Amino acid sequence: MAQPNAKIRLHVAADLGPSLEVELVRDKAHYLFGVMRQREGDRLLLFNGRDGEWLAEVVSARRKTGTLRPIEQVREQSESPDLWLLFAPIKKARTDFIAEKACELGCRRILPVFTRHTASERVRTERLHAHAVEAAEQCGLLSVPEIAASTRLETVLADWPKDRQLLFCDETGPRPPAIEVLRRADPGPWAVLIGPEGGFSADEALQLRKMKLAHPVSLGPRILRADTAAVAALTLWQSVLGDWR
Amino acid sequence: MAQPNAKIRLHVAADLGPSLEVELVRDKAHYLFGVMRQREGDRLLLFNGRDGEWLAEVVSARRKTGTLRPIEQVREQSESPDLWLLFAPIKKARTDFIAEKACELGCRRILPVFTRHTASERVRTERLHAHAVEAAEQCGLLSVPEIAASTRLETVLADWPKDRQLLFCDETGPRPPAIEVLRRADPGPWAVLIGPEGGFSADEALQLRKMKLAHPVSLGPRILRADTAAVAALTLWQSVLGDWR
Repeated sequence: MAQPNAKIRLHVAADLGPSLEVELVRDKAHYLFGVMRQREGDRLLLFNGRDGEWLAEVVSARRKTGTLRPIEQVREQSESPDLWLLFAPIKKARTDFIAEKACELGCRRILPVFTRHTASERVRTERLHAHAVEAAEQCGLLSVPEIAASTRLETVLADWPKDRQLLFCDETGPRPPAIEVLRRADPGPWAVLIGPEGGFSADEALQLRKMKLAHPVSLGPRILRADTAAVAALTLWQSVLGDWR
Repeated sequence: MAQPNAKIRLHVAADLGPSLEVELVRDKAHYLFGVMRQREGDRLLLFNGRDGEWLAEVVSARRKTGTLRPIEQVREQSESPDLWLLFAPIKKARTDFIAEKACELGCRRILPVFTRHTASERVRTERLHAHAVEAAEQCGLLSVPEIAASTRLETVLADWPKDRQLLFCDETGPRPPAIEVLRRADPGPWAVLIGPEGGFSADEALQLRKMKLAHPVSLGPRILRADTAAVAALTLWQSVLGDWR
């Protein structure tokens, strides 16, 4: 549950340090001064995914730009566990939701993948990035996951990293529960793959079954929507192998 | 991930049996004949939370009413584990989402509770019920969780059932991870409580701490929005004590 933020938190691209002023781009200035009514002298929190969290002060506030001055670092940078989420894009609102939740649940990288049965035609990477940034700002995160360009699933799997395990939810047969597979597994780099609502094609299923690093699992006896399956699988991974322990 | 439904699934209030015709109420008739373009002779699936799932046939289709005839039972009735979700209502879209997800994740009962720091003023029980019905229809469930009338948290806790354990997410101090608490716990009737975004009041926290059946837990190092926390806690409960095992 999100606690009420004592201060506004803003993700910026600029480096953060004691003598580095931050120039705001137009949409950040509009949000901070137009929407949130901040003025010169007001204080807020900044993070950029590299330099921790900084208390900062508004030095100048104009309509389309503004300057912030970092005052002191209040949290050191820390990294989320090395977890990726691969998912087949679905309806717009649910795709946005998946990006938001993957961020809250501490994924480092989000990869939209097109499968044979993916209904969605395209993914707006910037839109997903904006949702992830908003979640990071509101939920006190220190970094925003990278949103990869959308790619075909078979292409991603053909070039799969040699050291990254893959948890995928497979409804084609009896599978061990996700929690059991994770309990017997090694930590290290992992990814979770959530398939499309139409399921994987025969070719995709075959490609997955051939991968030694891929682990088919079950997420219970009920059919889950793709967005629910994503949150459930990421929660179980974080609880068993990630930083919820 | 939802598989494409071979057939339309409809939740009805009527009893289902081989010689029992089902008269459709207006909104179901509109959905089935107006939106989904079903005609006399078309087949679909029916469930009512008591009699399992039935293959049925459209006997008559009119604009504002219609009749269906159950042909044969295709799945026997089964019950979800005895799990309740208590949550403090938040923004409308996220409250709808929580009702939908609690249904998908197999809760039997959903209780909106007002806390000291709950921002929302009221809850439309029928609206939440409609979301739960839609989730049940689309996700192949055999029953729809009961949506209780909204009540004050302190009232619910003062009259708490003597045999029902309560998992609640507490951010006021160091707490054991939810998965650890659940692993050491007994199965049986349980409830998950998700607090408001402003956290519990001192009185509410005290009332919870005094309850022997209440277990405070942590859901990881990041702040989670209430809807994410609900899905995460229900997932962990189902995985450790519920029917995902």
